[in-house]
Amino acid sequence: MSQHGLMVARPRVVVVGGGFGGLAAVRRLARAPVDVTLIDRTNHHLFQPLLYQVATGLLSPGEIAPPLRVITHRQANAAVHMAEVTGIDPDRRRVHLRGADGTSGDLGYDHLIVAAGARDSYFGHRDWARHLHPMKTLAQAVDLRDKLLAAYERAADTDDRSERDRWTTFVIIGGGPTGVEVAGQLVSMARQFQRDFHRLATGRARIVIVEAGDSLLAAFSAPLRAHAQRKLSSLGVEIRVGTKAVRVDGRGVDVEGGGGARERVAAGTVVWAAGVKASPLAAMLGDATGASVDHRGRVQVAPDCSLPGHPEVFAIGDMADADNLPGLAEPAMQEGWYVAKHIHRQITGRSAPGRFRYRDLGTMATISPVDAVADAFGLRLSGVPAKVAWAAVHLAFLTGWGKRGGVLARWAYELGTSNRSERVILEGVGSEDGLNRLAHSDEPAAETLMAGR
Amino acid sequence: MSQHGLMVARPRVVVVGGGFGGLAAVRRLARAPVDVTLIDRTNHHLFQPLLYQVATGLLSPGEIAPPLRVITHRQANAAVHMAEVTGIDPDRRRVHLRGADGTSGDLGYDHLIVAAGARDSYFGHRDWARHLHPMKTLAQAVDLRDKLLAAYERAADTDDRSERDRWTTFVIIGGGPTGVEVAGQLVSMARQFQRDFHRLATGRARIVIVEAGDSLLAAFSAPLRAHAQRKLSSLGVEIRVGTKAVRVDGRGVDVEGGGGARERVAAGTVVWAAGVKASPLAAMLGDATGASVDHRGRVQVAPDCSLPGHPEVFAIGDMADADNLPGLAEPAMQEGWYVAKHIHRQITGRSAPGRFRYRDLGTMATISPVDAVADAFGLRLSGVPAKVAWAAVHLAFLTGWGKRGGVLARWAYELGTSNRSERVILEGVGSEDGLNRLAHSDEPAAETLMAGR
Repeated sequence: MSQHGLMVARPRVVVVGGGFGGLAAVRRLARAPVDVTLIDRTNHHLFQPLLYQVATGLLSPGEIAPPLRVITHRQANAAVHMAEVTGIDPDRRRVHLRGADGTSGDLGYDHLIVAAGARDSYFGHRDWARHLHPMKTLAQAVDLRDKLLAAYERAADTDDRSERDRWTTFVIIGGGPTGVEVAGQLVSMARQFQRDFHRLATGRARIVIVEAGDSLLAAFSAPLRAHAQRKLSSLGVEIRVGTKAVRVDGRGVDVEGGGGARERVAAGTVVWAAGVKASPLAAMLGDATGASVDHRGRVQVAPDCSLPGHPEVFAIGDMADADNLPGLAEPAMQEGWYVAKHIHRQITGRSAPGRFRYRDLGTMATISPVDAVADAFGLRLSGVPAKVAWAAVHLAFLTGWGKRGGVLARWAYELGTSNRSERVILEGVGSEDGLNRLAHSDEPAAETLMAGR
Repeated sequence: MSQHGLMVARPRVVVVGGGFGGLAAVRRLARAPVDVTLIDRTNHHLFQPLLYQVATGLLSPGEIAPPLRVITHRQANAAVHMAEVTGIDPDRRRVHLRGADGTSGDLGYDHLIVAAGARDSYFGHRDWARHLHPMKTLAQAVDLRDKLLAAYERAADTDDRSERDRWTTFVIIGGGPTGVEVAGQLVSMARQFQRDFHRLATGRARIVIVEAGDSLLAAFSAPLRAHAQRKLSSLGVEIRVGTKAVRVDGRGVDVEGGGGARERVAAGTVVWAAGVKASPLAAMLGDATGASVDHRGRVQVAPDCSLPGHPEVFAIGDMADADNLPGLAEPAMQEGWYVAKHIHRQITGRSAPGRFRYRDLGTMATISPVDAVADAFGLRLSGVPAKVAWAAVHLAFLTGWGKRGGVLARWAYELGTSNRSERVILEGVGSEDGLNRLAHSDEPAAETLMAGR
């Protein structure tokens, strides 16, 4: 390069969100003559399909969440920025940011890909939030793990029979793949814990799935739905289909079946696996561009995933409504590749690609350590073959051989020892008050305690 | 056993604390005709010597913290109870508890072993607490990990040179084994992160150890102290011996050297590896039995580790002053075995054992992935041989082959890839407020945001 050469700035592509869609776009843009800035509120890509295994103590957070910087460090044209996007201004082509250091700033772009995903939504029941355990972020999964493990400790701690039953009752709202997979893990957990909780009949833990629709795993074919339902029932899971949660409080759930009959299920832990809502950035984009926003908060995009009047702005993944695709990793990744290619062609002066077409590779869900269902690659599998296919696909899509080896080792450990590796409750009893607080305050703790008695 | 046989209650031994001392006692009591109740505020045994590797993202919490229930589940005469001991009444032979479910209760004992350990102490500087990162619990280690990883993100986020330097400056107060081991890890971390933070010269991260004494690793022999000091210096660690921290605030540390000269070290993260103080239960025991309590809060015990006038009550480990032994795992374990044997002999009518005698097996500390110092088993080792000895001893003392395999795999992964496995910052930008809070509250988020602009 000549020292006197004119520096021509390459087009800047800003990608908001390091999930499956955003990351696919960033990687595909490695070949394009652009500078890519990937912005995420966290420092990691989250492998959502295994998040429930963190929540149930099988995997550690790091094993399913490689840092975005590590994933992209060989990509010379990509930079990662840990920040929250607080606004988008399509007319001035700028995003507003709040950085990791709390300061605000602006970032200009030539092309923008918004792939900010979805978060949990309680269908307007905002008062439910503090009694429910959603599973969208790693922090939520770790919190749920603490609560599940603590539920057994609490059950072991009480002599009151009904309280003990309540603490060993786990309700899962939502019978999709997440709900089914969590239920399967809770069954394994209860069986494994029998060795460790002598006073509890943990094998009798009550695990209830509440699903408003007619069946579990609505996205699967009928034989696989039946298989999953039969297997979960035989594992002791109570399946309530056609049933809605109508009230959630600190001591359980009220459910309402088809006939309108209400029933109280006293439960120590209620897992939310039912509804998600698009990132607020979707509505923000709709507002700025005139695109409509559906009841799940998703912004309607053009057939090429762009926003009306803004061929340089794309929304993909769970926050975009493109042909009403399911909120899975696969459509998001395909959209990510597609829009990256689209931008690459725009920049290099080639014709736009045809409209985005989703190639459905199917879906799968695991039931137990040796059972799964898979509607994938044109095959319908259940039992051990489905479980093997499930494990192979999940390991293949994990990022990095280190992670693959680690996860495989943890699975082998569980199969071999009937135990799970991450059974730590981070917060101890009285961590926030009592002795610990006194010790932290550096006061003459004992005197204070004695005086307080 | 006859159905009509008279049930004779076996003596109940209550053990407070599932650290090295308490756990050693519980295991030794497996052979004794007693019922053992192990009480701990957490659900796990914490392998303290590797806690700094959790704090620096090398290991996951579960790998160094097996659940107490799993460790003891084959021991028929042991029960585990997750609770906080809020008081001890030696005259009525009862401990007061607050359980995992928040309720209070009492538990009677025939023999009591109190092994509640130590916690961080800031020598009376209670205002320092919120600016320092101690490393006594898993929750603290995970919090420190988040802060260390976030410091690099913040450094990458700013264009202000002095702020960038501040965020990549790490001060460690305390030059004992923990301080030295943390410093070594921070050097590795900075080197590894160079690949991932293109805009930062992370290799130039500034790592400062502040030690009030004359030398690092005061417990080691002079040649090993010199080796550690030389090696750390060559790795770029700034070593300030004979230097005290005199002020800690949100932006750094003021240190004071031997001549009384003060210097400001602007730092983004300050790790506390200097002082600990015994559990408040030590002072409580002193108050109840008349035993004296030293300036570190430890209760003075008799030569057989019992309390004055209470041959059935023992205090061991970091909270007991027995011949001024160092606060390490080994003395605590030896005391645990000893008092368990003592109780066993009391119960079976045999003569009391002789006074407790510590058999010093030495001490070791790691410096880098290929360097350590070890004053152990009568040998003085440094470099690779010391590192191998260090790894062997630490793996041997870890509980369970699963944990050993997991930790070994993580070490191999770091050596092979120059990366660390657990680089997750659990909390994202704006997790507590902003978009996420709005999304959580189930309000029409976009409208609110637009109105707020």
